[in-house]
Amino acid sequence: MDKKTVGLSDTFKGKTSPKIFTKNPIVGTKFTIAISSAKGGVGKSTFAMNLALALKSINHKVGILDADIYGPSLPKMMSINEKPKSEDGKSLIPIEQYGIQCISIGFLVDEETPMIWRGPMVTSAIKTFTQKVLWNDLDFIVVDMPPGTGDTQLTFAQEIKVDGVIIVSTPQEIALADVKRGIKMFDKLKVPILGLVDNMSFFESDDGKKHNIFGEGGVEKLATIYKKEFLGKIPIDIDLRVAADTGKPLVEKKPDHRISKIFIEIAKKIKGSFL
Amino acid sequence: MDKKTVGLSDTFKGKTSPKIFTKNPIVGTKFTIAISSAKGGVGKSTFAMNLALALKSINHKVGILDADIYGPSLPKMMSINEKPKSEDGKSLIPIEQYGIQCISIGFLVDEETPMIWRGPMVTSAIKTFTQKVLWNDLDFIVVDMPPGTGDTQLTFAQEIKVDGVIIVSTPQEIALADVKRGIKMFDKLKVPILGLVDNMSFFESDDGKKHNIFGEGGVEKLATIYKKEFLGKIPIDIDLRVAADTGKPLVEKKPDHRISKIFIEIAKKIKGSFL
Repeated sequence: MDKKTVGLSDTFKGKTSPKIFTKNPIVGTKFTIAISSAKGGVGKSTFAMNLALALKSINHKVGILDADIYGPSLPKMMSINEKPKSEDGKSLIPIEQYGIQCISIGFLVDEETPMIWRGPMVTSAIKTFTQKVLWNDLDFIVVDMPPGTGDTQLTFAQEIKVDGVIIVSTPQEIALADVKRGIKMFDKLKVPILGLVDNMSFFESDDGKKHNIFGEGGVEKLATIYKKEFLGKIPIDIDLRVAADTGKPLVEKKPDHRISKIFIEIAKKIKGSFL
Repeated sequence: MDKKTVGLSDTFKGKTSPKIFTKNPIVGTKFTIAISSAKGGVGKSTFAMNLALALKSINHKVGILDADIYGPSLPKMMSINEKPKSEDGKSLIPIEQYGIQCISIGFLVDEETPMIWRGPMVTSAIKTFTQKVLWNDLDFIVVDMPPGTGDTQLTFAQEIKVDGVIIVSTPQEIALADVKRGIKMFDKLKVPILGLVDNMSFFESDDGKKHNIFGEGGVEKLATIYKKEFLGKIPIDIDLRVAADTGKPLVEKKPDHRISKIFIEIAKKIKGSFL
C-alpha cells in the first residue's frame, strides 16, 4: 500500500474558520485590554498587575479580570484572601485592592484546589466574570489571559469587544513560535493587537554584565516582521519577582523603581491609543 | 438586602468530582511517563525532550508524545520538519529523530498556524495521538503535557494508564501555587506522582556567584510537605536553552555536559521505579 503524507482532516480544518458573533463591551468598563502570551510562564500575570497599577498611577480607574481559570495568579500577587460579596445572589462585587477592582476564580476556591474542568466549564466561568461582575465605572479593564489559543481566547474574541491585546513574550526562539501563533490568532479573530513586549529580556549581574539568558532581540524582530508596535523591553529583575511573590506589585510598592518607570511608560502609550 | 459571601455553585462543585473510567495503556508502549507543570513556561518541554534522550542513553526504546496542542514545542526542539506517513489513511507512523519516536500536532500544521480550538477538539486530537499512532515496541513514552488542569490532563488521567507523572516547576512562590494544584489534581485522579523537579533553580554568572532569580528551595519544600520524591535541581543554563532552540537537545548534543549528567541521573531514578 502506498504511504501518504497526512495533514489535518477536513473536519478539523473546517472548525478552525471563525464565525461572526456580536461583541459587547464588559458592562461598567470603557476599554478592555487583554494581556496575552500564547506561551505560559513568560511573566504575563506580573506584567498585567503592574500595567494595571501603572494605568492607575496616571489617574485612570482600572480593574483586573483574571481569566486564567487553571492557574489564577491574582489572589497571591495582589494579596487578596477574601471572597467576593453579592447583593442579589447572582452578581458579584469585585474586590478592591490598591485602588484596583479585581476578580479571579481564586477568590471562589482555596489556593490548592485545582479546577479540573473541561472547556465548557471554563467558558461558563469566563461568562460569569464578563457578565455578572459589577465593575464600577472603569476606564480600563485589564484581562490576564491564560496561555494557549483555546476556549478562553475564543470566548473573549467572539463575545467581548476587546479593544486591544498586548502580547508578552520572553525572547527565546521556542517562545517566539507561540507568539507567531498568538498574532495569527488575534488577526484571524479581528482583535486589534496594541503591541508586543519583550519580557525577561536580560539579567544584569552585580558586575554590570548583561546575560541574555533567554536569547536576545527576538520579540522586537517579530514586531517588525508582523508590523506590530514594539512596546518595550523589561529586564529580569529580582525586585519585580519578589514584589509579585509577596503580594504588592512593584509599581505599587516602589513607583520610582527603574522597572516601575518602564511600566508607566507603557501605560502612557496604551492611554495614548485610546484617550 | 444582606450581602452574602459567594463560593462555587453546587453545579460547578458537582462537576469537579471524578468518575470511574477504564484506563488503557498506549498500544506499542510499556510505560507512560507524563511531564506536567500546571504552570507554563517552567521548562517542561526542554525537560521532557532531554529526559527522553537520557532514557535512550541508558538503553531504552523511547517515544515522545507532544500533548501540548496549543503550543507544540517538539518540532523545533527536535528539528523535525516533515509530516508523518500513514499506510492505511487512519493510523500515523511516528517520526524518528535521534533514535526517538515522535508525534506532535506541529507535524500536521505549519509552525505559525494557531490551533484555535475549543476543548472537545483538543480531546479529539489527544485521542488520535494515543490511539492511532503506531508506536513501535517502546519501553517508555514520555508525554509533554500542556499547562493547566483541563481537557488534556483529564483525557489522559481518565482514559490512559499513566504510570507516573513528573511535575516540573521553577521555585518562585507564584509557580508553587500551581504545583500544589497539580499535585492535588493527580492525587484526585489517582495518577501516581513519580516526583518533583526544581527547574531553573539558580543562575551562576562567570564570577561563580549564584543568583536565585526565581527564588530558592520552594519545590523541594513542597515535595517534603506533600510526601513526594524530590528528583533534583536543574540550574538555568544557557547551553541547555540554546540546544533546545537549535533543535538538538543538550543530552544528545553534549552527553558529558554537567546538565546532561543531571538528566541521566533522573532517568536512572525513573528506570529504577519501573524496571
